[in-house]
Amino acid sequence: MIEAMNKLIALDRERTLLSHIGALLGWDQETYLPEAGLDERAEHLALMEGLAHEKAVKPEIGELLATLEGEKDLSTQEKAYLRVSRREYNKETKLPASLVSEMARQTSLSQAAWVQAKKNNDFKCFAPHLSTMIKLNLEKASALNPDAPCYDVLLDLYEIGSKEKAIAEVFAVMKRDLVEILEAIRSRPQSNDSFLRRRVSAAAQSKMSEYFMAAVGFDKRRGRLDTAAHPFTTTLGGDDIRITTRYVEDYFPSSVFSTIHEAGHAMYEMGLDVGPDFSGTRLADAASMAIHESQSRMWENIIGRSLQFWKAHYGKTVPMAEGSLDGVELEDFYKGVNRVEASLIRTESDEVSYGLHVILRFELESALIKGSLAVKDLPAAWNDAMRQTLGVEVPDDRRGCLQDIHWSMGSFGYFPSYALGNLYAAQFWAAMKEQIPTLEGSIAAGDCSPALDWLKDKVHREAAALLPSELVQKATGSSLDPSHFTAYLRKKYSAIYGF
Amino acid sequence: MIEAMNKLIALDRERTLLSHIGALLGWDQETYLPEAGLDERAEHLALMEGLAHEKAVKPEIGELLATLEGEKDLSTQEKAYLRVSRREYNKETKLPASLVSEMARQTSLSQAAWVQAKKNNDFKCFAPHLSTMIKLNLEKASALNPDAPCYDVLLDLYEIGSKEKAIAEVFAVMKRDLVEILEAIRSRPQSNDSFLRRRVSAAAQSKMSEYFMAAVGFDKRRGRLDTAAHPFTTTLGGDDIRITTRYVEDYFPSSVFSTIHEAGHAMYEMGLDVGPDFSGTRLADAASMAIHESQSRMWENIIGRSLQFWKAHYGKTVPMAEGSLDGVELEDFYKGVNRVEASLIRTESDEVSYGLHVILRFELESALIKGSLAVKDLPAAWNDAMRQTLGVEVPDDRRGCLQDIHWSMGSFGYFPSYALGNLYAAQFWAAMKEQIPTLEGSIAAGDCSPALDWLKDKVHREAAALLPSELVQKATGSSLDPSHFTAYLRKKYSAIYGF
Repeated sequence: MIEAMNKLIALDRERTLLSHIGALLGWDQETYLPEAGLDERAEHLALMEGLAHEKAVKPEIGELLATLEGEKDLSTQEKAYLRVSRREYNKETKLPASLVSEMARQTSLSQAAWVQAKKNNDFKCFAPHLSTMIKLNLEKASALNPDAPCYDVLLDLYEIGSKEKAIAEVFAVMKRDLVEILEAIRSRPQSNDSFLRRRVSAAAQSKMSEYFMAAVGFDKRRGRLDTAAHPFTTTLGGDDIRITTRYVEDYFPSSVFSTIHEAGHAMYEMGLDVGPDFSGTRLADAASMAIHESQSRMWENIIGRSLQFWKAHYGKTVPMAEGSLDGVELEDFYKGVNRVEASLIRTESDEVSYGLHVILRFELESALIKGSLAVKDLPAAWNDAMRQTLGVEVPDDRRGCLQDIHWSMGSFGYFPSYALGNLYAAQFWAAMKEQIPTLEGSIAAGDCSPALDWLKDKVHREAAALLPSELVQKATGSSLDPSHFTAYLRKKYSAIYGF
Repeated sequence: MIEAMNKLIALDRERTLLSHIGALLGWDQETYLPEAGLDERAEHLALMEGLAHEKAVKPEIGELLATLEGEKDLSTQEKAYLRVSRREYNKETKLPASLVSEMARQTSLSQAAWVQAKKNNDFKCFAPHLSTMIKLNLEKASALNPDAPCYDVLLDLYEIGSKEKAIAEVFAVMKRDLVEILEAIRSRPQSNDSFLRRRVSAAAQSKMSEYFMAAVGFDKRRGRLDTAAHPFTTTLGGDDIRITTRYVEDYFPSSVFSTIHEAGHAMYEMGLDVGPDFSGTRLADAASMAIHESQSRMWENIIGRSLQFWKAHYGKTVPMAEGSLDGVELEDFYKGVNRVEASLIRTESDEVSYGLHVILRFELESALIKGSLAVKDLPAAWNDAMRQTLGVEVPDDRRGCLQDIHWSMGSFGYFPSYALGNLYAAQFWAAMKEQIPTLEGSIAAGDCSPALDWLKDKVHREAAALLPSELVQKATGSSLDPSHFTAYLRKKYSAIYGF
């Protein structure tokens, strides 16, 4: 038994090494790759993906799993490891090779078409590709689990164990509350944030980013910051987790908060410490996309945009901002970086309206997958939903249903994770505050370590051993409850906007 | 036949992709890897090396080679490809796995012991490891070719087709001439180079390096410059060749010339253009270590330290040098960067004495391999040779026989390449000047492209198709002749030192 377990772990670790090497190839592509190196890099990535897949689907793994699953004398950790391994092995082996290669081919065509369609504001050109991606996702879902509703199977790929019905119930409450808060804010005078548009050089912003990484507790021995067109976090090794940011010279908060956001993701990856027996295995993976997002949102928004946090750091920020914050009071800065205003683009939206952008996508993609919404009707449905929930008129598809890359990549079921992340974060935050009465005082004194330590202990080190629903129950004592998030928003924004 | 050739090429290309991925792992380790990521990186490298080796020794390759070698209807390029492939396949398959793994193990121990020995100036602690490395190299040589003298077999690993006897003859002439030139310089007043020791910031030196890369013709679309503790060039893809440099703040010429040196290596790699049929195969490799070195030395020394070159670029350099060159005349700058002075350390030595450092190592390593010099007697032999050829007293082994890493890594037969590189470069230069009468005028006008074009045409695009001896014959019309190098030195340094 011990021998079979060791064999399984060794195979798993080799697969992890290959995937870390793949991550280096990807990181380098986004940061330093010379222009002409791109074509061959695609071959490197395909080769490594192929090697990692070969390792992941070895029949030997299936045999080892079958043997070990029959064992009775297993520790809790061993059981969890077998559960995770079985799940991933099934996922990797159940898809027919023909479907996998057809998806790869169509995804590449679809993404290229989306880039053009977005550029030319031409939904019609993208529509046939979107139909193909939906069709392939239906095939994928029934290959993975022919007995479950397709959208549930797709959701499960990102938020393990989740079902559309449960998410829809949670989102209904959330939607109602967010619309209400947004309306309350609309009735009040808007905050001024013009001082945030003053020029701050990339060099100064880079110093700020390094400062804030350290401030939230990012371990620079185990990672680093570089620049990329789109900020991301990537794991190149158990002790090598890298983040990127970008410097917008006429809006420096963009880099500050994206750095803190990515640092939140990275600190989660750094905290996936399952001990030496299972390090480097699938057990040391994240619990889910939404739990990952809860960590980035916790640091970016709940802590990073709090008044306490800026009480500690505003005095250090002003001298780094090349004069752009001279004469700006802490209170005004705080209100400026928390300005709420319904707008067109999800990725640029504020903490309140963000959730509504996501719910809209959840509702539309679920309808697309079920067939109750035809691809050709997507733009009109999108624009209607934007008008109804956010009160915003969509001027063109480029800033409407063509704005996100996800569907063009065939990622259906992914969007809900973003909003679930906010809900988990707020629920963790409520539990953390209750358990550590001095928490906000520490943050205001410049010490974020009590928050990080709590997250490490209650969330990070559980890694993939628990389902997201089990994790939130264990860490907070109750199941997912969206009221923590809306209560948090109500308290924060009623103080800012005075409603 | 076509099918067998295509199959061989496909296998070869996959091996190349793996080796390029390994190169990225190595590049990243020297440039950006976070401190704590080092341990896992060693595992990544070992894994990729294993995979590349697996690909390289596939019995299928042996079968394909045997089939194709029996064919009569082969093009010149196909014949060359089979020759190169056979040579590499034999090299990779002839070593018993037990010897390969023992060498890997002992090399790692030996290198660690060398680091300590150098630090503590303690040759005795390193001596047993050096004996082991010699013993393993003897085993390696007889596994590769039991019928040839061991040192010839080792030389052949770096300078294909070379023999100790021929090198010794060439080096004898070179040694006599270098000693003579060095003595002539010693009899004359020394140049002043104190202005080169003035502080220039790393940021300013980085701008200079980018300027000089472009000036010599480095294509930044196909490569980039970063910083590392020890400058190097590495090929991460056919169109992704990267160089590194380091910034010594109180001696900026160090980065300028190391950047030009590495750019010379990189431009060679960029020029290994064997056409689409054999791109990405072993035919697109360098001809040899010494040919590689001839390209870096050509750009660093023959062109990069020439008066013509600085006529074009000194005016642009002064404003980049943060005031350190204000009031310094071109002539004095030129003499400063060409100051000759026998000294202890090979890597810091000038163009004239460099060859003597290498010849000394050649003579000693050949004696060590033959057993005519005992390991315990190495320090004394080293110090005697330094006294006799360079007129320098060695104060300790750290600055004597422990200075270089090569022997600790088991690289015997490598050193001669460095000096052969100088000889090839000077011979190429003489031919180039004869064929392009306007060459030096172009360089003085800031246009290095005639030189680069000549090198691309006569040297680079031959890639691995010719042996170094064939390449020099074809490019220059005669076999290797050390008198080009010493004539070049005599002309240059008699003008500088007035002898």
